[in-house]
Amino acid sequence: MSQLTRRSLLAGSAAAALGTISAGAPAYATAPLAGKQAPGFYRYTVGTYEITVVTDGAGRFPLPEDFVTNIKKDEVQAALAAAHMSSEVFFNPFNPIVVNTGSKLVLIDTGTGEANYQQSKGAAGQFLTNLAAAGIDAKAIDTVIISHYHGDHMNGLLRADNSLTFLNAEILVPAEEHKFWMDDGEMSRAPKGRMEGLFKNNRRVFSGEVLKHLRTYEWDKEIAPGITSVGTPGHSWGHTSHVVASGSSKVFVQADVTHVPYLFARHPGWHAFYDQDGPKAETTRRKVYDMLAAERMLVQGFHYPFPSLGHIEKDGTGYRVVPAAWNPAI
Amino acid sequence: MSQLTRRSLLAGSAAAALGTISAGAPAYATAPLAGKQAPGFYRYTVGTYEITVVTDGAGRFPLPEDFVTNIKKDEVQAALAAAHMSSEVFFNPFNPIVVNTGSKLVLIDTGTGEANYQQSKGAAGQFLTNLAAAGIDAKAIDTVIISHYHGDHMNGLLRADNSLTFLNAEILVPAEEHKFWMDDGEMSRAPKGRMEGLFKNNRRVFSGEVLKHLRTYEWDKEIAPGITSVGTPGHSWGHTSHVVASGSSKVFVQADVTHVPYLFARHPGWHAFYDQDGPKAETTRRKVYDMLAAERMLVQGFHYPFPSLGHIEKDGTGYRVVPAAWNPAI
Repeated sequence: MSQLTRRSLLAGSAAAALGTISAGAPAYATAPLAGKQAPGFYRYTVGTYEITVVTDGAGRFPLPEDFVTNIKKDEVQAALAAAHMSSEVFFNPFNPIVVNTGSKLVLIDTGTGEANYQQSKGAAGQFLTNLAAAGIDAKAIDTVIISHYHGDHMNGLLRADNSLTFLNAEILVPAEEHKFWMDDGEMSRAPKGRMEGLFKNNRRVFSGEVLKHLRTYEWDKEIAPGITSVGTPGHSWGHTSHVVASGSSKVFVQADVTHVPYLFARHPGWHAFYDQDGPKAETTRRKVYDMLAAERMLVQGFHYPFPSLGHIEKDGTGYRVVPAAWNPAI
Repeated sequence: MSQLTRRSLLAGSAAAALGTISAGAPAYATAPLAGKQAPGFYRYTVGTYEITVVTDGAGRFPLPEDFVTNIKKDEVQAALAAAHMSSEVFFNPFNPIVVNTGSKLVLIDTGTGEANYQQSKGAAGQFLTNLAAAGIDAKAIDTVIISHYHGDHMNGLLRADNSLTFLNAEILVPAEEHKFWMDDGEMSRAPKGRMEGLFKNNRRVFSGEVLKHLRTYEWDKEIAPGITSVGTPGHSWGHTSHVVASGSSKVFVQADVTHVPYLFARHPGWHAFYDQDGPKAETTRRKVYDMLAAERMLVQGFHYPFPSLGHIEKDGTGYRVVPAAWNPAI
């Protein structure tokens, strides 16, 4: 037998011609290419609770010049390449979760909204499809908890026709976040461009039927059975994370304490253009990640690649997410 | 608002009583606990080829004393704990793939077999169920490629009733591997216990209908369109990996060059009790992983956690697998 060589390892379609086997004339396979991903949900348990991660998909857009506001684009591109990600097209996953506490069905964040399915050509806006694939009826959701008022987290409160998505759900929102975006003075002082757009979008979504179902919550409160709000400001004024706990088990649902981990966990000092207050977001991020690493606590990250569950380790000057092993039989 | 504190971060079910929100008396959620994982398949493309990872599930068993033959059990347990895995119950995922080349539907390895579904109480033996969930008919498989003759890779050639699983498939096996296990002299010299059991199992499976569909292949050959065999011996006598290539894209399908990566990629000098020739397996492993890291080549690992796809990086004295980001829309 031949020995393993670099040449043989890297062999490809131009490899040595067929030896002992004759493949015969190729005929088209019985099965055509499927061209379709598996249903985008994943289940795990925390104590007696069952958590279903339901992906909304992932946005893709050309990496902007100022994606990291305090770092040059070529350094950001190098970090993406180092993480085996495209350095040209930014990959932005969106991953809400449903917590079944046994007494309540609680959704944390909503994804980009049904209307985005067509807008993104199916790349995102998948939440309701994947929710249905997971066997969960949107009408059965008792509570929707919103972490902060950025579109990928709350636009899904409305259907494509602007009607209410979760007909029977109370919508719980961080009190400080709601106050900030509903404040006319803050809106009048908002810079043109992104901040102005966020105000407009928040006034659009948080109106009518949504407001009728809405209640505000404070930090450090158990806002649903076993689900506690934790203030993690900086990314937005009232940005909030959540601890889901059952028995002695817990998971820290971080929302956007980091955006994609291969940039902002790896480089906690980098400020995303999504951060309303970069330095404050960085302080929060370092504090949270130091604690998660020290406590070896499970973390669920909205912008981590699906199923977005892992542990944090310190790694040089930053952190690394160690994805949890997929469990094929819960 | 309160500031983020360690206490608030680690808040749990014993957290501060409800503040602004009154959750009311708990009523059972409309949806009962699902208790069931998502369908276990994942799709990605390599050039024009479509690859479907179809999990067979994962075995779980108490970590044996000599699981790593040249390292003490407590050091192995420390490595498992460091990887956020149980140090008592070993988690052993099994992940075959189906390659749709456009002209052929090619399965690489089979999983533990349908009979193992009941034996493992659903933990493994899931391959046929997940294959069906992926919309692939077992009868449509044109070719089954076997990497080596260990039960988790080839027991699935037979159904629970011992009939042929892939009725219309040619079964391609490594010539040296087949020769070794079918050699009566080798069998007579095999130590009692595991090796004797492997000989018996291989004689059971590679008989009757399976033999009628079987053809042997050599190393460094294109044994199916775009699929080249690469000799990676040590784990077993004729252990073989495969490069799947289409256009300029390729993936290295490693089979058991490492067993679970958090032990044997992290510690390439550790020898699994599954290794027929530990030192030879280690030499192969270091050579392959050095190349994969240098070439930044995509690797598919049978015993990596599902969907078992990633890149290799050097990390201190060993290697680390960086899982590929789940793509929610291929």
